[in-house]
Amino acid sequence: MASNTTGEAFRVTTFGLSHGRALGATIDGCPAGLELSEEDIQIELNKRRPGTSNITTPRNESDKVEILSGVYDGKTDGTPLTAIIRNKDQRSKNYDNLENNPRPGHGDYCWYKKYGNYDYHGGGRGSGRITIGHVIGGAISKKLLEQYNITTTAHVTAIHNIKMEKKLPLETIKENITKNNVRCANLDTAKHMEEEILKAKSEGNSVGGQVEIIIDNLPVGLGQPVFDRIDGDLAKALMNIGAVKAVEVGLGVESSLLTGSQMNDQYTIKDDKIITTTNNSGGILGGMTNGMPVILRITVKPTPSVSNPQQTVNLESRTPRQITIEGRHDPCICPRITTVAEAACNMVIADHMIRSGFINPDKLE
Amino acid sequence: MASNTTGEAFRVTTFGLSHGRALGATIDGCPAGLELSEEDIQIELNKRRPGTSNITTPRNESDKVEILSGVYDGKTDGTPLTAIIRNKDQRSKNYDNLENNPRPGHGDYCWYKKYGNYDYHGGGRGSGRITIGHVIGGAISKKLLEQYNITTTAHVTAIHNIKMEKKLPLETIKENITKNNVRCANLDTAKHMEEEILKAKSEGNSVGGQVEIIIDNLPVGLGQPVFDRIDGDLAKALMNIGAVKAVEVGLGVESSLLTGSQMNDQYTIKDDKIITTTNNSGGILGGMTNGMPVILRITVKPTPSVSNPQQTVNLESRTPRQITIEGRHDPCICPRITTVAEAACNMVIADHMIRSGFINPDKLE
Amino acid sequence: MASNTTGEAFRVTTFGLSHGRALGATIDGCPAGLELSEEDIQIELNKRRPGTSNITTPRNESDKVEILSGVYDGKTDGTPLTAIIRNKDQRSKNYDNLENNPRPGHGDYCWYKKYGNYDYHGGGRGSGRITIGHVIGGAISKKLLEQYNITTTAHVTAIHNIKMEKKLPLETIKENITKNNVRCANLDTAKHMEEEILKAKSEGNSVGGQVEIIIDNLPVGLGQPVFDRIDGDLAKALMNIGAVKAVEVGLGVESSLLTGSQMNDQYTIKDDKIITTTNNSGGILGGMTNGMPVILRITVKPTPSVSNPQQTVNLESRTPRQITIEGRHDPCICPRITTVAEAACNMVIADHMIRSGFINPDKLE
Amino acid sequence: MASNTTGEAFRVTTFGLSHGRALGATIDGCPAGLELSEEDIQIELNKRRPGTSNITTPRNESDKVEILSGVYDGKTDGTPLTAIIRNKDQRSKNYDNLENNPRPGHGDYCWYKKYGNYDYHGGGRGSGRITIGHVIGGAISKKLLEQYNITTTAHVTAIHNIKMEKKLPLETIKENITKNNVRCANLDTAKHMEEEILKAKSEGNSVGGQVEIIIDNLPVGLGQPVFDRIDGDLAKALMNIGAVKAVEVGLGVESSLLTGSQMNDQYTIKDDKIITTTNNSGGILGGMTNGMPVILRITVKPTPSVSNPQQTVNLESRTPRQITIEGRHDPCICPRITTVAEAACNMVIADHMIRSGFINPDKLE
Repeated sequence: MASNTTGEAFRVTTFGLSHGRALGATIDGCPAGLELSEEDIQIELNKRRPGTSNITTPRNESDKVEILSGVYDGKTDGTPLTAIIRNKDQRSKNYDNLENNPRPGHGDYCWYKKYGNYDYHGGGRGSGRITIGHVIGGAISKKLLEQYNITTTAHVTAIHNIKMEKKLPLETIKENITKNNVRCANLDTAKHMEEEILKAKSEGNSVGGQVEIIIDNLPVGLGQPVFDRIDGDLAKALMNIGAVKAVEVGLGVESSLLTGSQMNDQYTIKDDKIITTTNNSGGILGGMTNGMPVILRITVKPTPSVSNPQQTVNLESRTPRQITIEGRHDPCICPRITTVAEAACNMVIADHMIRSGFINPDKLE
Repeated sequence: MASNTTGEAFRVTTFGLSHGRALGATIDGCPAGLELSEEDIQIELNKRRPGTSNITTPRNESDKVEILSGVYDGKTDGTPLTAIIRNKDQRSKNYDNLENNPRPGHGDYCWYKKYGNYDYHGGGRGSGRITIGHVIGGAISKKLLEQYNITTTAHVTAIHNIKMEKKLPLETIKENITKNNVRCANLDTAKHMEEEILKAKSEGNSVGGQVEIIIDNLPVGLGQPVFDRIDGDLAKALMNIGAVKAVEVGLGVESSLLTGSQMNDQYTIKDDKIITTTNNSGGILGGMTNGMPVILRITVKPTPSVSNPQQTVNLESRTPRQITIEGRHDPCICPRITTVAEAACNMVIADHMIRSGFINPDKLE
Repeated sequence: MASNTTGEAFRVTTFGLSHGRALGATIDGCPAGLELSEEDIQIELNKRRPGTSNITTPRNESDKVEILSGVYDGKTDGTPLTAIIRNKDQRSKNYDNLENNPRPGHGDYCWYKKYGNYDYHGGGRGSGRITIGHVIGGAISKKLLEQYNITTTAHVTAIHNIKMEKKLPLETIKENITKNNVRCANLDTAKHMEEEILKAKSEGNSVGGQVEIIIDNLPVGLGQPVFDRIDGDLAKALMNIGAVKAVEVGLGVESSLLTGSQMNDQYTIKDDKIITTTNNSGGILGGMTNGMPVILRITVKPTPSVSNPQQTVNLESRTPRQITIEGRHDPCICPRITTVAEAACNMVIADHMIRSGFINPDKLE
Repeated sequence: MASNTTGEAFRVTTFGLSHGRALGATIDGCPAGLELSEEDIQIELNKRRPGTSNITTPRNESDKVEILSGVYDGKTDGTPLTAIIRNKDQRSKNYDNLENNPRPGHGDYCWYKKYGNYDYHGGGRGSGRITIGHVIGGAISKKLLEQYNITTTAHVTAIHNIKMEKKLPLETIKENITKNNVRCANLDTAKHMEEEILKAKSEGNSVGGQVEIIIDNLPVGLGQPVFDRIDGDLAKALMNIGAVKAVEVGLGVESSLLTGSQMNDQYTIKDDKIITTTNNSGGILGGMTNGMPVILRITVKPTPSVSNPQQTVNLESRTPRQITIEGRHDPCICPRITTVAEAACNMVIADHMIRSGFINPDKLE
């Protein structure tokens, strides 16, 4: 029972490998009547595209999207929308030494045991490139959520040991992350982060970091007790992204250092709206949104593709082997993962908006 | 589209509120031929049962389980297994002041907006008591996984600012957690933790903590790329538990402080088995198990039911209101949540063992 | 991957065997705020209950329903509703000769091969008694659909070679089926049918028949292309009922005898409503409702439990064996199957009403 | 909640309209290691392709398939397989008079009410052309089932009032249906059927018919009680095909004319295998396969596109309107529907083979 589909009401199925003919996604459940163009998807794809700065992999793919179905006269028509991107399909010789020698920190060995094969030319469905499917699904859900003023913003808050400490207003975050390659909202910190990434790159090493995601303008009561709570579904969507090793909601791991009196967000009324005076819970209580911004944080491990020699075991001879990974890789995946994290969250939110009756499942009204 | 069902191949549906006639669970998809008794379930229920020590709520429910279907002559018969527990249904007067006054830190307000009602007598499906359903499902999946020597162990590693620092062997953990009420594997630390909980209790306050979960003896290749990865499904299952605010895999949030060279677990061969020399990844790579123990950590917020006065907004008058929560509550939910966390993980693992063909879906062979 | 759950948005999970402690159903996804009592369910259960006339099995079960959860102060509360019925659990000696000797026409042999066991005391999940779960789910969906004036009526149109030829108005059908034990709308034909059933009974034999189902007042556009069309889902629900061997929509098998010009229902407008002048399609076009009454017909095979000697093969010795089935059985299941067919259709319709946004998934408005 | 996905373990998602850029399908859950080429799919597509004889629509599409993902070095790789076909996208002027004038017998009106639009240029997802997706999914499941010697054969048994009366051996059927355009196993009857179709064509009219499907070599115990029985899932899959108005299993509607003694298939043992001496039940008992060939029959209504004037209602003016349908259409869809029916059944069987543990979900062994 494979699962390359996510969502119950807004269902996204993705397909394609790093080095096959094409990658793409089919979106089933987008209501009819939503204005949508290839440009809407392209904008998001360009944000995750490699080769755009000195801190990402120099691999350069144009990643031009083509919508095959589901849009008619500029609007979604209620039928499944499939969009694809052609690979240039360069099977690099760089990878030949990896045949039967699974890379540490990658899923190669697990994939081999599971499927009897693995795509050593680029990681197969474990490659970061498969998140193109996520981004296609995310772009469409983003467009849908915009009709309801819901926005999702992911920004880098830590790279290795460089942290962005101070909280900034959401509007500043949205603006500043477009002004630097790291997608950090504090422009000074961004410079330090970029230096840290370039340092790792120069050493053939890699670094990780943290990304915060803020989802704004959600209605109260999104999320389905008990097993499809909104925090559960968001945690799953984010943890499903390769390299993510932790998901936190609101104060997250810090919550354990507070007492109940300190942690509880008190209710008050403002502009005739019930809100909380603090947002320690990150906008989620009892598995449902409470109308405050949803705040999430993910921790991203350093990219496993590093150039120093590593120990593995040859799968045929079952003897130890030392390998060196060549090819072009990201020294830090955090800046590019922001787009994928936004996409992952937007798909979950779109799904729950329909599931809870806030969006009509068949057509926009 | 509600969802009180979890799992694709091993499906658990739970039902019941804190204060209705009964709570329970239906398990659909347990293969025929598994030896199972009410005692197998009762043992697990007793572990989460309140009133068993001075650090839990004094509410005393006997929580006697009755299996209604699915077992024949001491073995599962391949049909859905339903097990229930009768509530004593004491609608306490303690709660009457909470009508229309949602409690801070609880899901009351969200529930009210979503369903047009909320059970102010005990939190409804947001109550910790509904985890009885989880534990029933967990007990059966635990029994099933035991046939494959798979064990899941949850132990408390932090209470408020008291941390258990040193790693202990799994066998020691399994043994020591039964020797103290906190379910901490270090018996000295356990005493400090118990004191910390009693201190919070004496102040009418509450504290949170952290729980580590270790799943042992898993096969390689469990987990379904891309959207039902094993880390995604475990993160969801754990985040779905009330009060959990963070889920970490392996090094978790610490991962961002390592470089790629430090983080990558190197492969080696031992006793003709491919293993890694470290386990920073927590037994999961590319969303699949790699044969090493799966290591997870959850952060549990302090229980929101505290006795000091709190600010809320009356839902009818829409004016501010101060409330005081009476009744009997846990000053710290961590010790009891260990059983629920084990249950949540066991259900996911049982589900994936069937989904990946390691367990026959119809009958034990 | 078992499946004792039906529905996506209105999910019904059933459990229990003919001879265990209890049977029942859990309904997940009924919106909050629906008035519902045990009596609402009991009425439907009484319609399918055996022992109420001379043409059904004399086995007499009181079949008293108990709602365990999901109803609060007389209304659904948005949480899963579980209702059960206790069996008297009489393991009859009548069945002992059936151990290892699977009955012709029953699922015994298939069940044995699949699960390694079968409940020879009463057919297990293959027993007609398990439709109690269907009827519980049906009763609740019926109550929900009544809020939208949607009604489902099943009536017997044929018993063996006795056919009810003339079409009657829906109101007459609804009235007349309560006036005879066969649930046939033509009272004269009903008498002949009853005689036919009694004749089969006196010979230790059994007969089958046909049941027509009419669903009224449906909105236009119910049904999801391409794989959850409303005709597909209704066909599945009806074919899933034991003993059903054919499902027809509208003219059904007769459709092949018409030309396109004859078959097509022409559109007209009446009382400002677009309708068709005929209803050959049975209210379904392109897999969606067109606003006309949905007309379905099922063919029910004669009950396989007959008293004459039959040939089987002993599963242990693998040699031929002659068996005689004792115990009390229905000479014709058609009258009782009407209630189950109504239930099956109501569950599908309730599910699609929510899925298509006609009913809010969380609460009645 | 749309649904363009079918299957739980072998999941097929289809997309594309009659007149968009492309149509296709994504298959998720095909085990790794299955040899598969574009030719395997093309063979099946060619069988349903129009324009191949004088009894089908003269519309000529080359329908060349392209596999975009999921196959590596000639074998499935365990990742989702997407295959597409480009439309020539000829938006015919023939259809312009159908804007706002829904065709009788088609789903136009329902689609319009549901989605606020309908594709009057060719029926959208209601068009027969969308079954290309079915056939792609069917071709892959067929290849998978061939590894287990399971074959599915659909043949035309009736066209209008011309019936093929005599039963023929399966091998004869398989051979003869390739020898005539009608895909009837009796070559004499086939001629009469072809004449009947040409007669309807010459009159601008259409005819329907019946198709029998035989599935051979199934294991015992396929099918999941209670709600995913194999007869239920096959009935749904077949009824989901446009124009199908009835599904019968085994004797189907005739079952009601037999007594229980006549209907029951007696068990015997032959070549050490337990079989039944007759197959009135069509190979299915209690919702599970019993090891005998599964026999199904569908009734196909006459194609609704006929050239005589028909009555409709204009959706804007809400006044009666007479329309004439131009364009090229099939006078009888039965011959081409055989391929779609085989595909629909093969997808269900492949799904259940995996669900019941007969095929490993991850890789062929």
